[in-house]
Amino acid sequence: MAKTKKPPRPKAETPKGFRDYFGEEVLERKAMLDAIAEVYHRYGFDPLETSAVETLEALGKYLPDVDRPNEGVFAWQDDDEKWLALRYDLTAPLARVYAQYRNELPTPYRRYAMGPVWRNEKPGPGRFRQFYQCDADTVGAPTVTADAEICAMLCEVLEVVGIPRGDYMVRINNRKVLNGVMEVAGILEPSEPEKFAHERGIVLRAIDKLDRLGEAGVRALLGEGRKDESGDFTKGAGLSDEQAETVMAFMAARREDGAATLARLREIVGASTTGLEGVAELETMAELLHAQGLGAERFVLDPSVVRGLGYYTGPVFEAELTFEITDEKGRPRQFGSVAGGGRYDDLVKRFTGQAVPATGISIGVDRLLAALRAKGRIGGEAARGPVLVTVMDRDRIAEYQAMAAELRAAGIRAELYLGNPKNFGNQLKYADRRMSPLAVIQGSAERERGVVLVKDLVLGKKLAAEIETNEEWKAQPAQAEVPRAELVGHVRGILETLDGGGGA
Amino acid sequence: MAKTKKPPRPKAETPKGFRDYFGEEVLERKAMLDAIAEVYHRYGFDPLETSAVETLEALGKYLPDVDRPNEGVFAWQDDDEKWLALRYDLTAPLARVYAQYRNELPTPYRRYAMGPVWRNEKPGPGRFRQFYQCDADTVGAPTVTADAEICAMLCEVLEVVGIPRGDYMVRINNRKVLNGVMEVAGILEPSEPEKFAHERGIVLRAIDKLDRLGEAGVRALLGEGRKDESGDFTKGAGLSDEQAETVMAFMAARREDGAATLARLREIVGASTTGLEGVAELETMAELLHAQGLGAERFVLDPSVVRGLGYYTGPVFEAELTFEITDEKGRPRQFGSVAGGGRYDDLVKRFTGQAVPATGISIGVDRLLAALRAKGRIGGEAARGPVLVTVMDRDRIAEYQAMAAELRAAGIRAELYLGNPKNFGNQLKYADRRMSPLAVIQGSAERERGVVLVKDLVLGKKLAAEIETNEEWKAQPAQAEVPRAELVGHVRGILETLDGGGGA
Repeated sequence: MAKTKKPPRPKAETPKGFRDYFGEEVLERKAMLDAIAEVYHRYGFDPLETSAVETLEALGKYLPDVDRPNEGVFAWQDDDEKWLALRYDLTAPLARVYAQYRNELPTPYRRYAMGPVWRNEKPGPGRFRQFYQCDADTVGAPTVTADAEICAMLCEVLEVVGIPRGDYMVRINNRKVLNGVMEVAGILEPSEPEKFAHERGIVLRAIDKLDRLGEAGVRALLGEGRKDESGDFTKGAGLSDEQAETVMAFMAARREDGAATLARLREIVGASTTGLEGVAELETMAELLHAQGLGAERFVLDPSVVRGLGYYTGPVFEAELTFEITDEKGRPRQFGSVAGGGRYDDLVKRFTGQAVPATGISIGVDRLLAALRAKGRIGGEAARGPVLVTVMDRDRIAEYQAMAAELRAAGIRAELYLGNPKNFGNQLKYADRRMSPLAVIQGSAERERGVVLVKDLVLGKKLAAEIETNEEWKAQPAQAEVPRAELVGHVRGILETLDGGGGA
Repeated sequence: MAKTKKPPRPKAETPKGFRDYFGEEVLERKAMLDAIAEVYHRYGFDPLETSAVETLEALGKYLPDVDRPNEGVFAWQDDDEKWLALRYDLTAPLARVYAQYRNELPTPYRRYAMGPVWRNEKPGPGRFRQFYQCDADTVGAPTVTADAEICAMLCEVLEVVGIPRGDYMVRINNRKVLNGVMEVAGILEPSEPEKFAHERGIVLRAIDKLDRLGEAGVRALLGEGRKDESGDFTKGAGLSDEQAETVMAFMAARREDGAATLARLREIVGASTTGLEGVAELETMAELLHAQGLGAERFVLDPSVVRGLGYYTGPVFEAELTFEITDEKGRPRQFGSVAGGGRYDDLVKRFTGQAVPATGISIGVDRLLAALRAKGRIGGEAARGPVLVTVMDRDRIAEYQAMAAELRAAGIRAELYLGNPKNFGNQLKYADRRMSPLAVIQGSAERERGVVLVKDLVLGKKLAAEIETNEEWKAQPAQAEVPRAELVGHVRGILETLDGGGGA
C-alpha cells in the first residue's frame, strides 16, 4: 500500500435497503429451502445455479418498476465496456440458459433454482433490495398440463412448509383472456400487436394494483391518471369511459363458482379468438386440478389476478395467504401474495427467434418466512446453544480443549470459552447469552479428585426462579459432580432428557 | 413499453468469467456445504448471512490484486451517489457486522457463513469471477487457543468432506515472525509503522507467489523487479542483497521437525520482540494441536506460508492437498491450497477505533469440489432421474397425471411427459436423457384390462447390450404388466432392488 494519510473511519452499516440475517433466521430459511427443494425434486425438477451477474441485455426490461434508474436493476460497466447487472429474478437467467444450452438440455427442461435476487427499488418497511426466490419452471411444454402441474405442486409446497389447507388460496387467471378484453376494449389489434403496447402496459400494472389502490384508484389509472396521497401524479392509459368499463367488468368477473366465472368471461371477451382460447385454457386447468384432487378450498379462478410482469402470455397464478396478521402498527391485515407465476412463451424467443413455451412458479421465501413468524409457527423457542467448557485455570487450556474435543467427537455441540477467563461470572453470562444447556467446570480441586462439575443451566434457571432460601439453593440438583472419564456420557444423558429422549 | 423498433436479439451467454452449474454439480456443492456447516455448528459457531452488497468503504482495500480497476471488486454508484460493491470475501462483511452489532452480539462471537463472493479479476481456466467460500471466524478471542481450534476444525472439515488424512497438510506460520524478519531486514521500524509499508506489501505478495514463481522469481521481486514471460515488468521492493537474503532465509527456515524450525526462526528474528513473540505463538499453537491429538501427518510449521491478504496480524494457515492430479494438458501437478486463514486483529478497529482480536478460516468450496472430482471421489455415477409416466393417449392426460401424483405421494420421484406426446420414441429418448429408472405406459388396450406396463429402463439397457436374438428379446424381463392398483407398490419394489434394499 502506498504511503498515504490514514483515511477517515468507514461507517459500519448495512447498505440502504439491505439487511443481515443471524443464527436462527438463517437456519429457518435453510430448512424452508430444503423442504421446497425436496418437493421440486420429487416432481422431477433438476437444480440449476446461474451466477448472480448477467449481461444487462440478457436480462431484458421486464420489471414493472420501469420508472427507476437502470430500469430497477443494479448495473455497472465491465472492463470491456459491456454492461453487467445483478439478476432481478430467476426467470430471466433461465431463459438465457435454455437459449444457450438448448441443444444439450432435455426437452422439456424442468429446473428449479433458489437464491437471492436484487431489485434497485426504493426500500420500505419489510421491503428489501435483496431477497430470496425459489423457482420451478418447465421449458418446452406447450400445454396447460404443465401449468396445472405447477399449481398443484405449489399447493404441496405451501402445505409442506407449514401453511395448512384453508390458510392459502391459489388464484388462477389467463393473460389470453385479458388480451381478449383488450381487443374488445379496442386497445389490442391482433394484426398490429405493437400498437397501444404502452397503454396496455399501464392497464396491466393498474389491474395488478387493485389490492392497494381499490377500484377507484384503478379506474383513475385506466383514464387520465391518478394523484397519490403525496401529491405525485401517475399518468393513466387514457381510455374512454366505455373502454375502461370493459376492463373493470373483467376484473369483477369472478362469480360464486368456476363454471359461472367462465360463463361470465365468455360474455365479456365476446368474439375474440384469443379471449375464447384463454377461457378454454382456464377451463382445462380447472379440470386437470380437479382430477388431481384439488378443489375450491385450494384454488379459484379469479380474473383480477394479472401479475405485473410484462412477459406472461397464458395462465397466470398467485398464491395468497388468507389469514390475517397484525402489522407494525397493530392493525390486522391480510398477509397477501407469497408466490406467483405463469406462462411466458416468448422469453427464450428473445434470444433465439424461435418460440419456446415455458411456465413456472416463483416462491417468495422471505415473505413466506415472515408469514410463518407472524403466525408464531416458527421462531417461538430460541435454539439451543453449545455446551460450554469453562476455563478455571488458564495454564490448563489444553485439558479444557480436550474436553470440548471429546464432546464434539461424540456429536455433541460444544465449545471452549475463548474470551478472557479471568472473571468466571462472565463465562456463565456468556453461556446464558449463547443459550448453552450445560456448563462444564473443573477447578484445581476437582482436577485433583479426577472429577468435573456439570452445571445444568436450563434446570438452574428454572430453580433460580423458584428457590427462596439458601438451604434450598445448596440442595438444588442443577449441578453434578461426575468422574472426568464419564463426562461425555453424563452430558449426553442430560441432553437426551432435555430432548425428551432424542439425541443431541 | 413505448412504441419502439424491436431491438436486435440479445446474445445468450454467461458473462465473461462466470459460469452456470447444473443438476449434480449443484447437489454436490450443497452436500459439501451442509457437511461443513454441520462441523462448524458442532464446534459452536452460529450462522450469519450478510447481503452480497456492501458499501465500498466498508470493504476496504485488502485484495492482493490491487492493480486491477476498482481494486478488484465489482462496484457501482447508488442513487444517492454512494459507492456499493459486491463482497470479495466473507471476512470484510463480518468485520462490518461485528462493528455494527457489537453491543448485541456475544463476545467472543463465533460465526460461520457460506455463499458466493465476487472478484473483478482476469478470468482464466478454472478461475472464475464468482465462487463459493465457507468461513468460520471467532471475533473477540485474543489468544492462539482460538487459532489452534480453527486449525483443528479445518482438519475435521477436510476429512468429513472426503479428503482422508495423509491427502492434506495444514501449513502454519505467524505474521509476527515475518514482521520480526522485516525488522531485521530494516524495512519495519516499530516506532514508525507506516514507513516502508509499500515495500513490505511487495515483499508479502512476493513470498506468497513462491509456489508459482520459484525462488529466483521471488528474489527478483525482492530486488529491482521481475519481467514475466509476456515481457510485462513488475517493479520490485528494491531491497539490497543483504536485506533480500534475510527474507529468503526466512522462507527457507522450515526444518525436519517443528522444534528445529522454531529454533531456526529464533536465530533469524534475533532480538526482534515481535518476531520472538511470533515464534512463541507458533510454539504454543503446535502444543495445543498436539494436545488435541494432531500430529505431523496433519500440520506442519512452514515459514513460507504468509497468505497474500494484507490484513493478517498473527497466525496464518493454509490447507494444501498433497495429492497429484492431472491438469487440462494431461500433466501431473499438485492440487495446492483449498483453504486458508489467520488472525486479523485490526479489521474491526478500522470501524470502531478499538482493537478487536479475530481469527478465522475460509474454505474454497469450489476448489475442494474440483479436487474431489479430479480424484474421482464424487461425480462418478450420474444421479438417478425420475420415473417417467408416458402419454399414449392425449385425451387421458388427467389419468396419467393421477399416476404421477400417486407415485409422488408415496415419496417416489416421478413426472409426466410434458412434451409433444405424438412420437412415443421421443418419450423413451427423453426418459433415457433424464436417466429415468422406469417408464410407466398405458395404451388403450392396457386401460381396458385395468393394467399398466412398467418398463425397467436400467435392466432394459443392460439386456439390450447382451441380447443377440429376437427370441431372447421377447423373453426379456425388463417389462412387466401390473394391475393399475398395484402401480405404486410395483414401482417401489423395483426402486428398492436398485437401491439394494433402501427406499426410493
